[in-house]
Amino acid sequence: MKKQHFHIPDNVIYLDGNSLGPLPKNASQRLNQTMQDEWGEMLIGGWNKAGWMAQPTKIGDRIAPLVGAAPGTISVGDTLSIKVYQALSAALALNPDRTVILSDTGNFPSDLYMAEGLIKTIGGPLEFKTVAPEAVTDHIDDTVAVLMLTEVDYRTGRLHNMKELTAKAHEYGACVLWDLAHSAGALPVHLADCEVEFAVGCTYKYLNGGPGAPAFIYVRPDLSEQIDPALAGWLGHEKPFDFASKYTPAAGVERMRVGTPAVLQMAALEAALDIWDDVSMDEIRTRSIALSELFIERVESQCPQLSLVSPRDPQQRGSQVSFAFEQGYAVIQALISEGVIGDFRAPNIMRFGFTPLYLDENDIEKAVSILADILRNDTWNAPQFLKRNLVT
Amino acid sequence: MKKQHFHIPDNVIYLDGNSLGPLPKNASQRLNQTMQDEWGEMLIGGWNKAGWMAQPTKIGDRIAPLVGAAPGTISVGDTLSIKVYQALSAALALNPDRTVILSDTGNFPSDLYMAEGLIKTIGGPLEFKTVAPEAVTDHIDDTVAVLMLTEVDYRTGRLHNMKELTAKAHEYGACVLWDLAHSAGALPVHLADCEVEFAVGCTYKYLNGGPGAPAFIYVRPDLSEQIDPALAGWLGHEKPFDFASKYTPAAGVERMRVGTPAVLQMAALEAALDIWDDVSMDEIRTRSIALSELFIERVESQCPQLSLVSPRDPQQRGSQVSFAFEQGYAVIQALISEGVIGDFRAPNIMRFGFTPLYLDENDIEKAVSILADILRNDTWNAPQFLKRNLVT
Repeated sequence: MKKQHFHIPDNVIYLDGNSLGPLPKNASQRLNQTMQDEWGEMLIGGWNKAGWMAQPTKIGDRIAPLVGAAPGTISVGDTLSIKVYQALSAALALNPDRTVILSDTGNFPSDLYMAEGLIKTIGGPLEFKTVAPEAVTDHIDDTVAVLMLTEVDYRTGRLHNMKELTAKAHEYGACVLWDLAHSAGALPVHLADCEVEFAVGCTYKYLNGGPGAPAFIYVRPDLSEQIDPALAGWLGHEKPFDFASKYTPAAGVERMRVGTPAVLQMAALEAALDIWDDVSMDEIRTRSIALSELFIERVESQCPQLSLVSPRDPQQRGSQVSFAFEQGYAVIQALISEGVIGDFRAPNIMRFGFTPLYLDENDIEKAVSILADILRNDTWNAPQFLKRNLVT
Repeated sequence: MKKQHFHIPDNVIYLDGNSLGPLPKNASQRLNQTMQDEWGEMLIGGWNKAGWMAQPTKIGDRIAPLVGAAPGTISVGDTLSIKVYQALSAALALNPDRTVILSDTGNFPSDLYMAEGLIKTIGGPLEFKTVAPEAVTDHIDDTVAVLMLTEVDYRTGRLHNMKELTAKAHEYGACVLWDLAHSAGALPVHLADCEVEFAVGCTYKYLNGGPGAPAFIYVRPDLSEQIDPALAGWLGHEKPFDFASKYTPAAGVERMRVGTPAVLQMAALEAALDIWDDVSMDEIRTRSIALSELFIERVESQCPQLSLVSPRDPQQRGSQVSFAFEQGYAVIQALISEGVIGDFRAPNIMRFGFTPLYLDENDIEKAVSILADILRNDTWNAPQFLKRNLVT
């Protein structure tokens, strides 16, 4: 659909856009401009003249339509972990008489760790309950303060039903915090329609914002004025340049800003978002399902050694497919050496992401044929593929 | 000393490096390389192959000698506000039986706000006491858990005596948290010699890391293994790529990492630090004092309308000089329009930063002569200079 807008190296089939999206061609150009014409020429004046100060909200407004949110409800900045802490602490304060944070074992570890850290900081009787993903619905009751889930499981691609789980949480008086790390840009999300209170997400995966691109946070507009931020940074102040000694939160979601925005990362992200301007998330979803269905069909017929760990029903999956294989790490290394880039998640999961912006059926057919060759010939069983690196 | 390494626009005298350093020429080149050769060509592989994952510690080790710290004691990432929260929560936990956080009214507002936010999050009997900068020493007693100060006052340039205040805090059993925002790269700092427990700082001022460059945090090495981070992100985990469900902190200062590092910002910062490799902080200090003394002498003789608000003794100042003038905002705007860039801090302070890497005596003489002309001719009293912008 948009392959011409990306730099994809020669002879590479990139099935890892669910981990780090590829370089949009205009991002290089835009960053050069930010470096030379803005930082270089405007110096400190860039905060006003180049609009750096407004980036977190302006870019939030570009992400909003991709996740079913109204303008002015999303702020961009920091990392996803920081945004989880902000959202969770605000969510807990909305339900001060309840003590349970409910999550699942399919949530991304950093979300779990940040919740642990927040609970220790707050102290008191808070209880962090993590259950199996399929058991979540049964554990929603009137002890739950916050239901905190990642919509798409980073290992298996299993997709939670945001609408149903949110409705059930609301029925029991709990509020929800959805992590959209593997949703934003991957499938349609309807934050406003589902009446979600808080959502967070990252922009370096399907949105192609670049390594270390900032995160985003959504706050339901009727709640944002009630929040007293735990991370009360000066750029979330009502009037940061008054340098008042007391904190007064800014209006709405602006209060979720903390420190000085990462201007260079924001510039790359903003350029990456240009590509989305005329993209329909429904069309992305249709194409993503077509590609992943083709991939599963071909892998199951050509690679009988691998077991599907993602849900077979495409409506139950995000935009990735995972297969288990004991030597999955080595197979992924062998694949990478032949230009097919997927990734590995311990203990035995091979992950493949489907990103219709720059992938088509030919890519899928070719990737599976290379994978089948590697398995047929045991190419993976070589020292250079068996040796573990830090990140895969 | 190093002017040839920076891009300074034609006809600009930049006296605002204390707010945002100018563009180092090699940073542009380096960022292009990171975009094209790393993100573009290596894609997800950049985390290993280009060393992105190691940046926070590697860059921390480049900052360490500039602030008198040993290798392996500084981690780079997030924003200064986030690092204040991390350091302060860790510092409080070291002194669980005490309830007072002592700071001063000259501290940067965001530090005060983050402390307020942390106190609300922790709850309980914590007390946040802010006194006048000169009264700090008299308020250090055995109720103080943490003494939290910014070494150089962002408004006046007043320099605290880190050695004496830290020693006194230790004498009374308190620990210290120093904010080095206006110190790192501005003057010699001796964190290890002063036995400072925690320090934080930013890299976009005197270190020239670029707009939104990441912050840094220092933890005294004998303490880092005792800290249970409040912001427990996955990259501060002992083994992030095990994706364990429970948080186990990484060794030493690595546990102060939180989420995915801002790779593009880190690349620009790393290039900016190349310039510091053969710079002596003592020499920087000598030159900075020479420039600021010349500036004060010339302003006082040529601009009698202005009153010095910085300490007159250069040993009591950081690397900036501030003058008060009721119409300071307009004067700064008029100066900027003539290429002399300083900045303004409410209510009436005109700030000028002295950065010997790219400033010399000629710049100072010329800047003061332009300032004197503006004041003599009331050039500042024009509508375009009187109208307030967001950031100055």
